[in-house]
Amino acid sequence: MSTRRTEAFTDGVFAIAATLLVLGLTDQSLGTVRTDDDLARGLLGLAHPVFSFAISFLILCVMWMTHVRQFEWIVRIDDAGMWINNVRLLLIVLVPFTSSIDTTYSDLVLGRVLLPVNFFLAIVLGWCQWAWAVRSSAIADLTADDARRLGRAGLSAVLISGAAMLLSPWLGSIGFVLFALDGPLTRLLRGADEPSSPPSVASRDGGGSDGDVGGRG
Amino acid sequence: MSTRRTEAFTDGVFAIAATLLVLGLTDQSLGTVRTDDDLARGLLGLAHPVFSFAISFLILCVMWMTHVRQFEWIVRIDDAGMWINNVRLLLIVLVPFTSSIDTTYSDLVLGRVLLPVNFFLAIVLGWCQWAWAVRSSAIADLTADDARRLGRAGLSAVLISGAAMLLSPWLGSIGFVLFALDGPLTRLLRGADEPSSPPSVASRDGGGSDGDVGGRG
Amino acid sequence: MSTRRTEAFTDGVFAIAATLLVLGLTDQSLGTVRTDDDLARGLLGLAHPVFSFAISFLILCVMWMTHVRQFEWIVRIDDAGMWINNVRLLLIVLVPFTSSIDTTYSDLVLGRVLLPVNFFLAIVLGWCQWAWAVRSSAIADLTADDARRLGRAGLSAVLISGAAMLLSPWLGSIGFVLFALDGPLTRLLRGADEPSSPPSVASRDGGGSDGDVGGRG
Amino acid sequence: MSTRRTEAFTDGVFAIAATLLVLGLTDQSLGTVRTDDDLARGLLGLAHPVFSFAISFLILCVMWMTHVRQFEWIVRIDDAGMWINNVRLLLIVLVPFTSSIDTTYSDLVLGRVLLPVNFFLAIVLGWCQWAWAVRSSAIADLTADDARRLGRAGLSAVLISGAAMLLSPWLGSIGFVLFALDGPLTRLLRGADEPSSPPSVASRDGGGSDGDVGGRG
Repeated sequence: MSTRRTEAFTDGVFAIAATLLVLGLTDQSLGTVRTDDDLARGLLGLAHPVFSFAISFLILCVMWMTHVRQFEWIVRIDDAGMWINNVRLLLIVLVPFTSSIDTTYSDLVLGRVLLPVNFFLAIVLGWCQWAWAVRSSAIADLTADDARRLGRAGLSAVLISGAAMLLSPWLGSIGFVLFALDGPLTRLLRGADEPSSPPSVASRDGGGSDGDVGGRG
Repeated sequence: MSTRRTEAFTDGVFAIAATLLVLGLTDQSLGTVRTDDDLARGLLGLAHPVFSFAISFLILCVMWMTHVRQFEWIVRIDDAGMWINNVRLLLIVLVPFTSSIDTTYSDLVLGRVLLPVNFFLAIVLGWCQWAWAVRSSAIADLTADDARRLGRAGLSAVLISGAAMLLSPWLGSIGFVLFALDGPLTRLLRGADEPSSPPSVASRDGGGSDGDVGGRG
Repeated sequence: MSTRRTEAFTDGVFAIAATLLVLGLTDQSLGTVRTDDDLARGLLGLAHPVFSFAISFLILCVMWMTHVRQFEWIVRIDDAGMWINNVRLLLIVLVPFTSSIDTTYSDLVLGRVLLPVNFFLAIVLGWCQWAWAVRSSAIADLTADDARRLGRAGLSAVLISGAAMLLSPWLGSIGFVLFALDGPLTRLLRGADEPSSPPSVASRDGGGSDGDVGGRG
Repeated sequence: MSTRRTEAFTDGVFAIAATLLVLGLTDQSLGTVRTDDDLARGLLGLAHPVFSFAISFLILCVMWMTHVRQFEWIVRIDDAGMWINNVRLLLIVLVPFTSSIDTTYSDLVLGRVLLPVNFFLAIVLGWCQWAWAVRSSAIADLTADDARRLGRAGLSAVLISGAAMLLSPWLGSIGFVLFALDGPLTRLLRGADEPSSPPSVASRDGGGSDGDVGGRG
């Protein structure tokens, strides 16, 4: 099957999960507010929920970008690939729940651990999807060399989210700032050379890239 | 009419219905939580809601995959086809409601029955859509043989969801594990041969498949 | 500008507004439920909310189908066209609110009137959009004859929703069953001949229709 | 990477954020309602929330249209571009929260300021994206002259939202009516000539425009 609708469904689930995070903020009580000082105090008290919201949103963006990068290469999807994607999305949909646990019970060890575990599992599933794609014939033109290099690049997020999970009993969601290292670590693991760009992009999005324009003449 | 926007609308409704299921978890009370033990007990008490959430999410994925498979073949849609799709989506949108009934009243017979009935009706509507597609001229190149074989394959989900519905007064949502049989039963009903792949995929998604690239030269 | 993203944004808003309607059901109290009889009584008490939910969902589908039909013809959109579309979507987004008013206060005249007024205004905006499309150069190949016939067909929904609005102080949302007349009335207003089909569908969805396949050879 | 999925994700986030605004209305209490007069009074009391809802919805539409206009030109996106887009969307997702603050605490200075600040930051990020696009090779065929003219046109929204922010301690969300000046100010800043239309639209949406049809023959 073509990947077009899998991508559309995935984009929808990510967009909704990311947007539902704001309901965690909207539901927060600001206490009794009568003056501007009360409101300022109430909003300062929201500092941790707002930080959790922002970090959850941005890590969802990281995982979505990983998905986009993978499916720039993947041109076909079978039942196994779809099921890996479904379980991956199940873990994404859980994020608003584990994020609300993190916000409410951040003073407890278990409260700090659940969100990092959720992210770690989702990222491991993403790594499984790439392993599936390389093994099946889902990718059109990929040299063994490129596949190995892209696979090692995918390891970066697994390692970082694993470290964030292991540190979470002490650091909580602050450990997610480790994701700032994702760029350098990706480049380190992938090696110096940029892999050649996916061959199907031009045709996949209906001819957006330059190479395709000439091909039609 | 072309099926492009019907697919987009359907993907959106499925993505939102699947994601709204998490609100059923977020709204659950964890009781009074002061220590890690309290939180662990509260989360263990969520075991059934989490199971219902996961099973509802995955069956929505099954139904979405059925829709994708059907519309890989269907290239045109008329008013009748759109209305079948609309009623199908109406039943999908009801899932967060019947799923919350299932979570809250799983100790009552009626509480256990509603969600399986909802899934059964949605799957029957999916079967009606395929019957419509074969009868109208919605499918471009399908031999009578392939149509029969694909129709029998679609029966698998109808039979399984019917069985889950009939067993639900005793099993509740646990009966949904029957869906694990969907793959083997589909292959059994369809017969040995894989039907030929849909002809329009290459062109439908704007040229993602390899065959199309050459066709443009 | 191309209409591709206007269509995607519109599909998203319709899908979300239609799915949010179910929250109106999920929030309903079923009273104290201890036995199956209690639950049955509670669910029977939901008969009117469920009817409102279904009717609102299906009329949103009618309005979405009108939008799809219009944009099968419209190939370009300018700022004026986008703003008509935005106000149209604003009225769509209001539907979950007016629908909840209709459910809660159906015993009051004002409670019965708001939802029909909302639908009427949204449908009038849809009619304005078609007037805009015909006047501007948004439609590629449309004879004056076809434009007139399609415009008259669009009148059907305006007339029906207007009648439902005028009858709503007495009938409430039951008046929406008038929409069952939409098909016959559309055919009556349009005249006997089906207008020729939109020219751009084949190319618009990336080549799904048959005509395009040959054009690439 | 191609911009197709960035656009889909963005359309989804905008559609959901815009639709979630209605939850702010649905949650409002109408007080004790027994007669039509009570309901009329309750709805009149919602005048300010409804105004805030409409203004927030329409400004989200303005920002979405800016995004559409930018990505009519942008054909490729790299990591930097995606991160600017992600932060931009983070600010969009915050709108239902700041909008609810604006509705609840409009009698406090801080309550009036937050929503305008949110919009201003989102619009500044949109401006950064254009600066990124011009500097990187994200835009295929854009003369330096057109780039300058389009950049100046983008300044219009920055200036207006800045003015609305500065006036908000006194005017609150009423200051957003300044956005009605966006059209004239855009034309003033851009200069007399309309810039040439984006070259890639025809091919980007799968061949919707006329020029492309011939190109395939």
